[in-house]
Amino acid sequence: MVGAQARASSSLRRAAARAFSSSTSPFFRGIHVFKCPDVVGIVAKLSECIASKGGNIHCVDVFVPENKQIFYSRSEFSFDPSRWPRDVLESDFQRLAKHFSAERSTVRVPDLDPRYKIAVLASKQDHCLVDLLHRWQDQRLPVDINCIISNHPRAPNTHVIRFLERHGIPFHCLPTAPGKKGEEEILKLVEDTDFLVLARYMQILSGGFLQAYGKDIINIHHGLLPSFKGGNPSRQAFEAGVKLIGATSHFVTEELDAGPIIEQMVERVSHKDNLTSFVMKSENLEKQCLSQAIKSYCELRVLPYESRKTVVF
Amino acid sequence: MVGAQARASSSLRRAAARAFSSSTSPFFRGIHVFKCPDVVGIVAKLSECIASKGGNIHCVDVFVPENKQIFYSRSEFSFDPSRWPRDVLESDFQRLAKHFSAERSTVRVPDLDPRYKIAVLASKQDHCLVDLLHRWQDQRLPVDINCIISNHPRAPNTHVIRFLERHGIPFHCLPTAPGKKGEEEILKLVEDTDFLVLARYMQILSGGFLQAYGKDIINIHHGLLPSFKGGNPSRQAFEAGVKLIGATSHFVTEELDAGPIIEQMVERVSHKDNLTSFVMKSENLEKQCLSQAIKSYCELRVLPYESRKTVVF
Amino acid sequence: MVGAQARASSSLRRAAARAFSSSTSPFFRGIHVFKCPDVVGIVAKLSECIASKGGNIHCVDVFVPENKQIFYSRSEFSFDPSRWPRDVLESDFQRLAKHFSAERSTVRVPDLDPRYKIAVLASKQDHCLVDLLHRWQDQRLPVDINCIISNHPRAPNTHVIRFLERHGIPFHCLPTAPGKKGEEEILKLVEDTDFLVLARYMQILSGGFLQAYGKDIINIHHGLLPSFKGGNPSRQAFEAGVKLIGATSHFVTEELDAGPIIEQMVERVSHKDNLTSFVMKSENLEKQCLSQAIKSYCELRVLPYESRKTVVF
Amino acid sequence: MVGAQARASSSLRRAAARAFSSSTSPFFRGIHVFKCPDVVGIVAKLSECIASKGGNIHCVDVFVPENKQIFYSRSEFSFDPSRWPRDVLESDFQRLAKHFSAERSTVRVPDLDPRYKIAVLASKQDHCLVDLLHRWQDQRLPVDINCIISNHPRAPNTHVIRFLERHGIPFHCLPTAPGKKGEEEILKLVEDTDFLVLARYMQILSGGFLQAYGKDIINIHHGLLPSFKGGNPSRQAFEAGVKLIGATSHFVTEELDAGPIIEQMVERVSHKDNLTSFVMKSENLEKQCLSQAIKSYCELRVLPYESRKTVVF
Repeated sequence: MVGAQARASSSLRRAAARAFSSSTSPFFRGIHVFKCPDVVGIVAKLSECIASKGGNIHCVDVFVPENKQIFYSRSEFSFDPSRWPRDVLESDFQRLAKHFSAERSTVRVPDLDPRYKIAVLASKQDHCLVDLLHRWQDQRLPVDINCIISNHPRAPNTHVIRFLERHGIPFHCLPTAPGKKGEEEILKLVEDTDFLVLARYMQILSGGFLQAYGKDIINIHHGLLPSFKGGNPSRQAFEAGVKLIGATSHFVTEELDAGPIIEQMVERVSHKDNLTSFVMKSENLEKQCLSQAIKSYCELRVLPYESRKTVVF
Repeated sequence: MVGAQARASSSLRRAAARAFSSSTSPFFRGIHVFKCPDVVGIVAKLSECIASKGGNIHCVDVFVPENKQIFYSRSEFSFDPSRWPRDVLESDFQRLAKHFSAERSTVRVPDLDPRYKIAVLASKQDHCLVDLLHRWQDQRLPVDINCIISNHPRAPNTHVIRFLERHGIPFHCLPTAPGKKGEEEILKLVEDTDFLVLARYMQILSGGFLQAYGKDIINIHHGLLPSFKGGNPSRQAFEAGVKLIGATSHFVTEELDAGPIIEQMVERVSHKDNLTSFVMKSENLEKQCLSQAIKSYCELRVLPYESRKTVVF
Repeated sequence: MVGAQARASSSLRRAAARAFSSSTSPFFRGIHVFKCPDVVGIVAKLSECIASKGGNIHCVDVFVPENKQIFYSRSEFSFDPSRWPRDVLESDFQRLAKHFSAERSTVRVPDLDPRYKIAVLASKQDHCLVDLLHRWQDQRLPVDINCIISNHPRAPNTHVIRFLERHGIPFHCLPTAPGKKGEEEILKLVEDTDFLVLARYMQILSGGFLQAYGKDIINIHHGLLPSFKGGNPSRQAFEAGVKLIGATSHFVTEELDAGPIIEQMVERVSHKDNLTSFVMKSENLEKQCLSQAIKSYCELRVLPYESRKTVVF
Repeated sequence: MVGAQARASSSLRRAAARAFSSSTSPFFRGIHVFKCPDVVGIVAKLSECIASKGGNIHCVDVFVPENKQIFYSRSEFSFDPSRWPRDVLESDFQRLAKHFSAERSTVRVPDLDPRYKIAVLASKQDHCLVDLLHRWQDQRLPVDINCIISNHPRAPNTHVIRFLERHGIPFHCLPTAPGKKGEEEILKLVEDTDFLVLARYMQILSGGFLQAYGKDIINIHHGLLPSFKGGNPSRQAFEAGVKLIGATSHFVTEELDAGPIIEQMVERVSHKDNLTSFVMKSENLEKQCLSQAIKSYCELRVLPYESRKTVVF
């Protein structure tokens, strides 16, 4: 595994560095997100901090929800690590966070920092899982995959199992039963992850699990939320005679399929489509919608706000 | 009015004829839709009938819902009216309808037949109404507009009223009150129409009215049905934190916002959008979605089937 | 005219103010664009300037072309005009412009500043012109229209002429002839405008005219530049058997159809489309593409860079 | 190989049969395309032929190019093979072909007929090749892959080579050199194929090769033809400052990048994109555009007409 992921990871960084240096030579790219009470002059202080270390701002996105006094920002900048070492950069932003009593202040330097570690939970259907693995293999998903967990077994010769073996990614099968959701085992397995991805995982995670894990969980729902919550949304959509079907990636909360929406995608359907083609078109949307959400999340573009909304910078 | 609409109408036909003759010279275009119990050989008989009169088929779309024995078809063909007079064409298809005990058999020859007559019902908001009028004026909507009915008055100098006066289209204001929906007056005013268009008409038409009118009624809903039924769907969508908003044109049935869907359109929204911009984006969708539905309907492309679905050929 | 445009203008501002104040109460919205040699700390200084007057930054977009040392930015902020008067705001940014020896520094306060004044040049075809007029009437285009100029006459009872009369917008017909392009007359008529819009104007403006006018000119081309330059792009596309047709709005330069592209839009075509429907689909794209370009331009989102490119923030 | 492809193939058929039988129980699906001089009554005869054997027509698409007397059609129908055996079906349509002196008449019964055999030619870049292989593995591409041919070597441990080994698909490396295009070797290797796919194959196939092979060749071009022909279209587009980039799949003819277009797709680009991201976005389009063209081709939806156009039913 080390081999495989190291290879992927290093060449990804080369790619990133290359892509980026193409715009500003020896520099590295930094991303900073910030959430604090809204007062005047936050952007001024942030950009002054970056400039004072010779950093160059590429964009600053700011969002202040209507009639709320909360400030959200995302800044992208380039800097010379020899002039602004990673740890100094960290402490400089910490100082600002303190000064503005920020609720959140996160920095990432994709070319330097370790990639996010995730675990993927799936059930019987493989299409989202396989798609994630292929994108990860093509170095389109900047994550390390700690393990795959499913409540359904896979035959040893299936594509997924063979793929995981080749790349040294552990596969854990934790069958569920009434009263036995195996959440404790899952918790142990995902302890070391940065966030979780539910790739068509058909179990409802308990509030206890969500609290115990305490980090973000991204789910893909094969319907255009808030319509078609719960089971078999494709059939629900088919019977409603809709002309557009969709998929929704969102954060997991205790309330089923009601967490903050990150991304939604749609495709046309017509009277020529039957339930089978509804499902096929939906699967295609789910793959894109889920990987898009993961990408945006890793780029620090996604910030939940209020109970049910997200900022997607 | 005569003047205005005659002008529109005749030049529309010239346009139609021109557009069409450009593909097959002196011929006219015929459209035929058919609904009957599914048996073998229907298309064969239909096309044989057209061919026997020197007609040339351009396309035949057939639809048989899964596990139902109902046949739907739409044929487009060109024919020489001197060789196949309009009335003979009619009776030829009638004979086939009888032979297949068809539930429906409709022919239209847009270059010859009178245009559909409609009435448009609106309430306070004008954007859909104004858009329909402009498209009608630009000869993009192949209908004659008998009258506009609203339950809200308009000041004499408003764009709508001045437009209607210029084009001789009557405007009827029928204010509603608790227990007084003015449906009898409406019925009288729309007696002579082929179908009705609800352009953001905020009253619920009673089952009695629907039965008494007995023809199709097309409504635009400013939400992506089946989500966000009823009042203020834009606010509902805004509060749900969706990333896509939509509009839905559908046939009116007794159950609110649950009639067969004809067309749906969506647009992206983001955290930057506030309720005001949700509404503006929605209005833009409503206009396109409603006029698209009317166009398809006039081209005999829209056939309702089962209780909640439509074929849109 | 005064009446009409004043009405449009004032209610537009009310709308703007309303839309905006909904996010930050009594404040007005300011837009600032900046172009100068790239050095460290520009954003810091800009935001510090805004913050020092109690202004609140909503977004800052920055762009530095690869391997060029030129800095482009666009900032949106809200401010209290009682605390930061319009003229002080102007001079504050002037000082910064001087300090960074900026090539360009423009401020706009849509709720306070006079709207941009434009003239529209057209030839025989009216679809783009009519669409602009309707959008202007619906207060979707934040401009004042000084006059319409065409090298083709219009009959007095045409929709366009009647519309212009109702709204008091002068129409000037300047027929062209070999060796007589009437550019001097045009120059006089557009002297007082902020920029020009060519709404399917089929004459090539001379380099002399461009120099003499000296301000921006936005053109709509009914093809997907750089393909299908020059005459009859729809026929060119039709004969090339493309599956997508497009429209392009761009700045006018001396080289025909080679100016910096602002916006492009496409639509699917198929073997079923004939030249007539190519043209109809194209006209629909041209309208959206041209008005989108004008809107972005008025919002200070469009900055040309290098010889053939644009930043569209 | 046999194993792998047999598995893919049989389960694909089960899928197809399932998907289809879901609409009309024990029946199989037939597809028929026809090209002949346009006369009255062709559709009548075709549908009569199908009906006479108890076949049920699902759709008939007809196309007659303007001012040409050529008739193209594609029919989809279901039939009971016990009542209408495959070989009788064949000869029945042959009889019609003769009767209408058809230039082309092809039948396919996807659930019965062997899948199309293809060879894929590639050069250095793998993205289109890898995508085809993954889609084939996921049973989204109804073809058998005879072999992969490249003019560039691959290291043994690359994803492609390992994939091909696992699935028993031969890989042939035929390096080219000035005056040595290895077309004879290629011809031998592809002798047994039904059509060829050029997945970013950077060699120009000679007219001699095209004639000798004599079957269809589908190419993907990473630009929106007819613009950006030839080398490095992404750079051409980048320097032209376009706001939309595209990909084009087309048939190969002797004239470079000028064969009939099958499918085109576009994506937005902005000033934020550099050449690297232009290429990444383009690669994503190329994959979808090429596989879509292959799918349509296998479904008998694609018919070239005139010198540069295609019907895509």
